[in-house]
Amino acid sequence: MAQQPTNQNTLPVTQRSIETFLDDLASGNPTPGGGSAAAIVGAMGAALVSMVCNVTIGKKGCEGVEGEMRAILHESEKVRRRLTAMVGEDIAAFESIMAAYKLPKATDEDKAARAAAIQAGLRRATEVPLDCARVCSEVIALSRRAGEHGYLNVISDAGVGVLAGFTGLRGAALNVFINAPALKDRAFAQAATADLGQLLERCAAESEAVYALVRDRLG
Amino acid sequence: MAQQPTNQNTLPVTQRSIETFLDDLASGNPTPGGGSAAAIVGAMGAALVSMVCNVTIGKKGCEGVEGEMRAILHESEKVRRRLTAMVGEDIAAFESIMAAYKLPKATDEDKAARAAAIQAGLRRATEVPLDCARVCSEVIALSRRAGEHGYLNVISDAGVGVLAGFTGLRGAALNVFINAPALKDRAFAQAATADLGQLLERCAAESEAVYALVRDRLG
Repeated sequence: MAQQPTNQNTLPVTQRSIETFLDDLASGNPTPGGGSAAAIVGAMGAALVSMVCNVTIGKKGCEGVEGEMRAILHESEKVRRRLTAMVGEDIAAFESIMAAYKLPKATDEDKAARAAAIQAGLRRATEVPLDCARVCSEVIALSRRAGEHGYLNVISDAGVGVLAGFTGLRGAALNVFINAPALKDRAFAQAATADLGQLLERCAAESEAVYALVRDRLG
Repeated sequence: MAQQPTNQNTLPVTQRSIETFLDDLASGNPTPGGGSAAAIVGAMGAALVSMVCNVTIGKKGCEGVEGEMRAILHESEKVRRRLTAMVGEDIAAFESIMAAYKLPKATDEDKAARAAAIQAGLRRATEVPLDCARVCSEVIALSRRAGEHGYLNVISDAGVGVLAGFTGLRGAALNVFINAPALKDRAFAQAATADLGQLLERCAAESEAVYALVRDRLG
């Protein structure tokens, strides 16, 4: 069956090649941007946790932690799927804001509808990275469990995993901080940034502890 | 012209789709691992710096920084290409170690040749992430320049860029730390880890300063 060469631009971002994604990220086009990059980095963290589990499961001498590794793997794969899906959600939220700005503003009715559409888009562009930040905090918690019990030869991958999880979290946080100030629903905006502040503080300490744990186990 | 569906497994890693790369990373296969992930995260950081430059160049009100943005972009694109190429170098180094372990060890001559091949592979698997760490430190320096002078609406991307650069650096460092102890050339191993220690310390402070600068500019 004849098949046309794949046009990478018509593919969802996560189905494009890494090189194409990097080209798109580097370009002056508004999407994909830092929010998508944060979600992908978080997904890489989850994938590295899964790798530690997959290598440890069935390894001689690691029988005692096999149950724990299977439990971590179940969670890390769920988290990876969730973060991968967020790339598309982040882009959709951003595009809805840009579409809202293009709505007509001839009448007062137009203006009100346009302002409401902009606010709805901004809210979504705050909720998605907030959700991304929360899911990235799960990557950090899973990295700790994988780092504590995983097979020693792949333990550095749990260390890269926790760094990726925390970078996904902080990167997503910047996208909340850039969008929340423009939200008219101040109660939601303030609750979102306050929640995020606590999450950042807790996860900064937790990430450093996991990195130190991995470095210690490396000797 | 008929074209066969692309078999992703025969493609170089960076030409595979992001989803396929994440699947490969999560699998129990030894490559790609944390070293490749670190190089890709660093390349994402460089791409985000390029994005800030590309959006700022030609923007009304940003004429005064256009020369600086073009200079940063020239560097960030060089750094991105270098880090993208390192993914393949990291995998080749790892595979050369695995191949060396499979060499015959029947005679003393065999054993000496095998030990030398293992050492050569380990040295390469130390040099590549050390080089990756150094290039990631350039991503951090470029993020600062982009963060200071870039167009305000994309400044959060410089913030995600610096986080990605530092995570690439720390992730690469873990791969040096896991391989250097097994090197028989102790002078090289100690110089490598000492250099890296200084780089990590300097870049930790620099990264936090850039992140804070971006957060301040976000208001």
